Amino acid sequence: MKNTQRGELALCGLETVKAAADARPDSIQRLFFTADRAKEFGDLCSAMARRKRAYRLVEALELEKLSGTVHHQGVVAMVTARIPLAISDAVFARWAQDGSRIVVLDRVGDDHNLGSIARSAAFFGWHALVLPDEDGAARLSTAAYRVARGALERIAVYAYPGAAAFARRCGKAILALGADHRASMDLDALCSSWSLQGQAEGARRAIALFLGNEESGLSQDTRQNCSQLVSIRGAGEVESLNVSQAAAVFFHALAPEHKAAR
Amino acid sequence: MKNTQRGELALCGLETVKAAADARPDSIQRLFFTADRAKEFGDLCSAMARRKRAYRLVEALELEKLSGTVHHQGVVAMVTARIPLAISDAVFARWAQDGSRIVVLDRVGDDHNLGSIARSAAFFGWHALVLPDEDGAARLSTAAYRVARGALERIAVYAYPGAAAFARRCGKAILALGADHRASMDLDALCSSWSLQGQAEGARRAIALFLGNEESGLSQDTRQNCSQLVSIRGAGEVESLNVSQAAAVFFHALAPEHKAAR
Repeated sequence: MKNTQRGELALCGLETVKAAADARPDSIQRLFFTADRAKEFGDLCSAMARRKRAYRLVEALELEKLSGTVHHQGVVAMVTARIPLAISDAVFARWAQDGSRIVVLDRVGDDHNLGSIARSAAFFGWHALVLPDEDGAARLSTAAYRVARGALERIAVYAYPGAAAFARRCGKAILALGADHRASMDLDALCSSWSLQGQAEGARRAIALFLGNEESGLSQDTRQNCSQLVSIRGAGEVESLNVSQAAAVFFHALAPEHKAAR
Repeated sequence: MKNTQRGELALCGLETVKAAADARPDSIQRLFFTADRAKEFGDLCSAMARRKRAYRLVEALELEKLSGTVHHQGVVAMVTARIPLAISDAVFARWAQDGSRIVVLDRVGDDHNLGSIARSAAFFGWHALVLPDEDGAARLSTAAYRVARGALERIAVYAYPGAAAFARRCGKAILALGADHRASMDLDALCSSWSLQGQAEGARRAIALFLGNEESGLSQDTRQNCSQLVSIRGAGEVESLNVSQAAAVFFHALAPEHKAAR
């Protein structure tokens, strides 16, 4: 839930609030929790007190009102809403040079899918999440943060005017891969072809993966501007995967080389 | 929503109702839809009329009451609830012989995760979904069917007294793999080892994949009875994937050989 007057967003859920407290403690304006969570937030309360910020024991019902969900797990933090970063030429050049992995959402509409995609992307060590500014696109809402379980604090989030424009900007510097369940090239074949080439292309080159809307997939314009459309091959009984499951399969198959670093 | 007196379950969502109409038309007892959906269900209404079953144009609000969700997409079918199949010795022997892929849910608790896992499993051509009878386990509810988008009609669903008992029953006939994010063996290494062995083991042997509870993972008992625990290797920033995303990654990597048959 947004408190638009204050420019605040409610974060809820244990891992979500703890990750925000780690990554950007100063953004937490107010903290509310139930009695049984008090012990877990002792340090954060001390830090809040030093900053002269309010924290308070409340009943579960109040957390439900603040967060708009029963899944608050006994804690809600009202935080300064994060503004996605702009993509400067320097950022773009660094991505291209470092072989970064970037996921771009082309009108993915469900905030839960956004949160879930962020969680999987961060898990597999993808570097950036780009949220083009499109009508009906999922937002960094309370629900998105809750489902991401802290992962939205661990992946850089950028804004861009549009997905197709971002695909055009990729040019030859970043491989623009569009996830499209009708594409004749499939992910396994693509990875095999890279593997045959000694991974020169696949493993080292920067990749931007474009994921489309839950119902309609990638826009025509985005498809035309990707350098390669890729499907995930299924057995044929069910037409397509949910976008957040497809995303996990792509993130795993195309994970950056340092994924072995655990 | 269940109408327990009649033993009926509400199915909602376009693809969900259409898949049920294809797979088990006789199970549809009553059909309700909004005016703008009428054209799409003409054939089904004729079939209902021949069977002397009721169908009716209603307002969206009534569908919301019947299905318990606003995501009904303008159609609700009241169906005879399906009873998961029992696993006879003959079924078990066939799985072992055919190199089947079976997914077993060990107290996965969220009906949406159940639906989502069923959709991905059917997409990748997995053969069976086993739902052990455990406290708190997700059920074949209206929400599970809605999220599965028809896939629950395209994968065989079985009941079993418990996940650990099923793992024990696998013995040497079916490879019991437990998904465990703390396991030292990871999925990529496992697949590579099979690939080095000419896929003799991995690709042809029957596999039962055990997926655990969203918070606590596999039970101790299930872990001890699996022949191999397997993790998905991440970059280390985020501890674990959501179970339905992990499932998709496993289903893809361990898909049966005929996945190329599309």
